[in-house]
Amino acid sequence: MMSVSNAQATPSIQICRIMRPDDANIVGNVHGGTILKMIEEAGCIIGTRHCNTQHGDRCVAALARVERTDFLYPMFIGEVAHASAEITYTSKHSVEVQVNVLSENIVTGAKKVTNKATLWYVPLSLQNVDKIIEVPPIEYSGQEQEEAGKKRYEAQKLDRFETKERNCEVITHVSLPEPYTVGFSQSSLIHLVGPSDCTLHGFVHGGVTMKLMDEVAGIVAARHCKTNIVTASVDAINFHRKIKKGCVITVSGRMTFTSSKSMEIEVFVDADPLVEAEKGKYRAVTAFFTYISLDKDNKPLPVPPLKIEGEEEQKHFEEGKVRYLQNKAKRLTNKERQQ
Amino acid sequence: MMSVSNAQATPSIQICRIMRPDDANIVGNVHGGTILKMIEEAGCIIGTRHCNTQHGDRCVAALARVERTDFLYPMFIGEVAHASAEITYTSKHSVEVQVNVLSENIVTGAKKVTNKATLWYVPLSLQNVDKIIEVPPIEYSGQEQEEAGKKRYEAQKLDRFETKERNCEVITHVSLPEPYTVGFSQSSLIHLVGPSDCTLHGFVHGGVTMKLMDEVAGIVAARHCKTNIVTASVDAINFHRKIKKGCVITVSGRMTFTSSKSMEIEVFVDADPLVEAEKGKYRAVTAFFTYISLDKDNKPLPVPPLKIEGEEEQKHFEEGKVRYLQNKAKRLTNKERQQ
Amino acid sequence: MMSVSNAQATPSIQICRIMRPDDANIVGNVHGGTILKMIEEAGCIIGTRHCNTQHGDRCVAALARVERTDFLYPMFIGEVAHASAEITYTSKHSVEVQVNVLSENIVTGAKKVTNKATLWYVPLSLQNVDKIIEVPPIEYSGQEQEEAGKKRYEAQKLDRFETKERNCEVITHVSLPEPYTVGFSQSSLIHLVGPSDCTLHGFVHGGVTMKLMDEVAGIVAARHCKTNIVTASVDAINFHRKIKKGCVITVSGRMTFTSSKSMEIEVFVDADPLVEAEKGKYRAVTAFFTYISLDKDNKPLPVPPLKIEGEEEQKHFEEGKVRYLQNKAKRLTNKERQQ
Repeated sequence: MMSVSNAQATPSIQICRIMRPDDANIVGNVHGGTILKMIEEAGCIIGTRHCNTQHGDRCVAALARVERTDFLYPMFIGEVAHASAEITYTSKHSVEVQVNVLSENIVTGAKKVTNKATLWYVPLSLQNVDKIIEVPPIEYSGQEQEEAGKKRYEAQKLDRFETKERNCEVITHVSLPEPYTVGFSQSSLIHLVGPSDCTLHGFVHGGVTMKLMDEVAGIVAARHCKTNIVTASVDAINFHRKIKKGCVITVSGRMTFTSSKSMEIEVFVDADPLVEAEKGKYRAVTAFFTYISLDKDNKPLPVPPLKIEGEEEQKHFEEGKVRYLQNKAKRLTNKERQQ
Repeated sequence: MMSVSNAQATPSIQICRIMRPDDANIVGNVHGGTILKMIEEAGCIIGTRHCNTQHGDRCVAALARVERTDFLYPMFIGEVAHASAEITYTSKHSVEVQVNVLSENIVTGAKKVTNKATLWYVPLSLQNVDKIIEVPPIEYSGQEQEEAGKKRYEAQKLDRFETKERNCEVITHVSLPEPYTVGFSQSSLIHLVGPSDCTLHGFVHGGVTMKLMDEVAGIVAARHCKTNIVTASVDAINFHRKIKKGCVITVSGRMTFTSSKSMEIEVFVDADPLVEAEKGKYRAVTAFFTYISLDKDNKPLPVPPLKIEGEEEQKHFEEGKVRYLQNKAKRLTNKERQQ
Repeated sequence: MMSVSNAQATPSIQICRIMRPDDANIVGNVHGGTILKMIEEAGCIIGTRHCNTQHGDRCVAALARVERTDFLYPMFIGEVAHASAEITYTSKHSVEVQVNVLSENIVTGAKKVTNKATLWYVPLSLQNVDKIIEVPPIEYSGQEQEEAGKKRYEAQKLDRFETKERNCEVITHVSLPEPYTVGFSQSSLIHLVGPSDCTLHGFVHGGVTMKLMDEVAGIVAARHCKTNIVTASVDAINFHRKIKKGCVITVSGRMTFTSSKSMEIEVFVDADPLVEAEKGKYRAVTAFFTYISLDKDNKPLPVPPLKIEGEEEQKHFEEGKVRYLQNKAKRLTNKERQQ
């Protein structure tokens, strides 16, 4: 079906799998991102395989560029997505891979080409990640084919160079917060609620929410102290309002208090029922997570003190201190009781 | 080992599984969130099972509260986490579940109690999600046990009520952006790079990055038009800089242009090597995603026009329009060629 | 509840979790592969735990073989799957684990034994992966039990040896096959082995491989009969060669036999160590999966007969028929015995 030039060394590859509920939105349309990920997996496999068909350093093909891609037809849950990849051009240091994606409804038998993508890979040595190794050449069916490839290569090279120029300017942060301030480590993530996050009712499992909360709190803690950090405790969490399938959850965390060896992070969960807009965003959960910083032997390290700016932050800090002292007192009482 | 009061109706449950690389950070410490999720799954099973041991509406136990939890010891990849849950108290409308977590090193045989948690569940009817059904009472080993449970119940009830009051105030947005503006749909997520996101080198697969980019772009599009949206195309993406395991990726998206039936979203990927602080945050990738809005029969819907504020947004809009017209022209040329 | 021979050293283990949408097909039937993966996780935990209860090298139990397994009842999303494992025999270098799987509907309280499996593990040293260490013996409740175990051990040893011989054929692709032929439903998928697929050694968990095999077999079955299909049984699977992290696994399936209400699919697993190209691709596992087709009420539907083309397919069909008749006879004998 596919014309492969050097069949022996690097035959074409085909990846396929059934589209699952978590690959799609609530209406059943498979996310474009799921397809892009499959495309890249096929490209990475064929690129890596090709670049290791010679003597010398072992390498992995790293994605350098994806050409413009159109999604021609939607794909649905239960269909099988096929991504076939073949190498269409090689320059001295890069590989062009062409990937075609086909959706197959295995029940009706219907098949559609949903999209085509062109990817460029660069082989990086496993010994030295900054070393780009040479790519073994492929054989072309004719000179015309080779020249067309070379043209594509030159065009993308130019575009990559231009974007590089452009990208450098873009990194302008309105105001860079100072290290160890609340603003410096403050973080938030959004998560689109999928079917596997939910109970039979179609509401988010409390455990899924807590996992996301811990993820954000962990990032805040790591940003603050730049070491290996672990959850030491979680204060009582109340789940006042349910979160429904199809919502977007925003989880935000900010540091409120530091003791000499611990950090307290307040985490907020807001739910946004995307489609039922009239309902609006609402606060679903809040909680305090306490983290500690560990050295290589899993022993606690000192934590850099939080730099407080303004009255509100000072108030939060004082409140955090009260919680810290209360918990410390409780732990001592419990220990004494046990003795 | 565990004292279960009414062994027949709702015996204790034990969940266990091997901790995998994806459950842990790069040093091998299992995330607190992984444990919290397991704890809640055990609680949900035993709570749901118990509340359905009587006639009447079928129900699912929904998490209402988790008491303060301490993580006593770190857990590591390869260890088996065991979470045992039992019901320790029931009020008319809620169930208290006690969960103990044990880590077992199946190679050395070492076992440690890593944490204990108390969760409160409320049974919601499967027929009517807003209806809380009655909880069948458990039998206590003695009156003392029952009274201690009642005390815990009253204490948590009070605390939940207080937090509810507090939470309502908190939802103050500095300035609520108007619908259909760029600011209104603008979104960003952070993702902590895990082992499964990476190549053998320990660098993020390009496909993983593209999937996150599509996720953010999709949320921006859905927030703008509040309908079922799908990816229509992705402009060329250049991967200038590698992203390493252990980094935090921030993916941000903002709408730049709308035509009558499509939306263009610009997506930025910034990488932050948490621990190697000296390197600092850098822009790794940018790209333009085009989305369309679909009705129930998967036919395109009109897209609400973007409200432009300020010169910069106007400039982005004009640039988006140029890209839109260029792509339209290209598609027409390709069609003609094929005829 | 379970009869454990040496309760102290290696008590039985129970793994359980709620079945999620991603564990099932679009009709809500849990994939046989999900269950096989859980079974293997339970077996790996108890096997590894047992083989480390003595002085000497630390080790991990690697799956060597799974005996024929029947899926007695379908399982559904929202149900809790329980897998309980216990060690039933030990030879000098291998461990036999018996796993029973129970489905529990936590809403209605209904419980069903859905399947039973027997797995054989071999302990590999963590210091030297090619070294098989000695297995500490278990205590038997009587000599009869020990002798029955020895018989099972000898029988599987013989079968493993014979299969080793068979493994060498490779699937060839034909062009545009007619419906109901072998070529029409033939399928294959490719999976890049990630860190979470692997044991502490960096080798793929047997359960991960079996899940992929079931996925391919399911696609073949669905392509053939275009209905809701479920795994009915899996013939003995032998794991001849280990698969390493970083490999690409190709899993291919083709239909070998159809009875009036069942389909037999042969599945091949080939491993390709992408980077170490000189090692070459090798056949790691093969197995036969039997599927049935279900209507909306989960009742068996007739299966369209397989159209045979050529001598080789005829030979496979005849062999499949023999297996089918043998299994049918065995089931009848077992039923009679139980009466």
